[in-house]
Amino acid sequence: MPARSPLDADTILAATEEILRRHGPDKATVVDVARALGVTHAAVYKHFASKQALREAVTRRWLDRNRDTLAVLAADRTVPPARRLRAWLHAVLAVKQAKIREDPELFAAYGILAAAHSTVATDHVADLLGQLAAIIADGAADGSFRTGDAAATARVVFQATAKFNHLAHAAEWQNPGIGAELDEVCSLLLEGLQSPAPATNKE
Amino acid sequence: MPARSPLDADTILAATEEILRRHGPDKATVVDVARALGVTHAAVYKHFASKQALREAVTRRWLDRNRDTLAVLAADRTVPPARRLRAWLHAVLAVKQAKIREDPELFAAYGILAAAHSTVATDHVADLLGQLAAIIADGAADGSFRTGDAAATARVVFQATAKFNHLAHAAEWQNPGIGAELDEVCSLLLEGLQSPAPATNKE
Repeated sequence: MPARSPLDADTILAATEEILRRHGPDKATVVDVARALGVTHAAVYKHFASKQALREAVTRRWLDRNRDTLAVLAADRTVPPARRLRAWLHAVLAVKQAKIREDPELFAAYGILAAAHSTVATDHVADLLGQLAAIIADGAADGSFRTGDAAATARVVFQATAKFNHLAHAAEWQNPGIGAELDEVCSLLLEGLQSPAPATNKE
Repeated sequence: MPARSPLDADTILAATEEILRRHGPDKATVVDVARALGVTHAAVYKHFASKQALREAVTRRWLDRNRDTLAVLAADRTVPPARRLRAWLHAVLAVKQAKIREDPELFAAYGILAAAHSTVATDHVADLLGQLAAIIADGAADGSFRTGDAAATARVVFQATAKFNHLAHAAEWQNPGIGAELDEVCSLLLEGLQSPAPATNKE
């Protein structure tokens, strides 16, 4: 066993990201990655058991790169929950707009994983839902939102903003009016969350 | 000029619908339609200038078949606007669920037209928005909804229910929980629409 391996997982992931960017998710292979690193593909497989595992790891790393921006926004208690909710929903859209614009090939790789119900996609959504639930819980705590179950309400808000967060709508995110549309949806949702009494509309 | 042509547009459309159902939108051709009718493809082109025009006409006819069910629901003033809005949104989902389940090939043809921004798709959405705006206008008139612009509010509600009406989400419409999800989104939107005063959440 060598005292120190020159090939670690991070080096492989960085190379894979570049290969994905250059060749796209349909054409990029583990052999391409190994060649770029000057190693055998067996050396790559020692760190990642399959092409699928490698693709998942690189996409997860790529998604996580903006995670902190959103998490910090969600947790910023100096901003009132209603304003924070609106800002966070806009930030989610902005992050996704930037990702698809700057990295269409990696975005496509994410789309393939999401279509296959990979844990990369479900974990990403669960992470966003957790951040959203934290904002809503803060609103419930300070009395600005009326909700008994912040996690359930977060799911409802996330579904009601699917047009602005679900990758099935990615093609629409470059439309010039998309931010204004999200703002209007936010306003209606916030009015619902801030409504003083349960509506008696369910007969 | 013959006194009466045995080939009218309706006959062609009915045959085209069957051909689409059998071959799918990628493989169905005008020649298939002509062969099924025992006429030349030139005879078909006399009624429809192109394969595209024929596909648009047949999809429009197929979409319109459920139009009246939804329009009647939207216009039924014996049902209070809040309850009517909820019922209508559920009916839109139910109609789309049935269409994709019973007629996947025609649904796929519609998807191709929508992706190409065909007027068939924009007209279909405009029609639904008109119905939705009528419900919201009734709610504004009787004081149950607070809105100054029913058409604009209809667009917001339609966008907030994209998960349940936009064909990018068609794969999710067979999920067992989809109706319950729509119901929760409806409740939040109705609370927003019924909220007594404009929320002061926009700073």
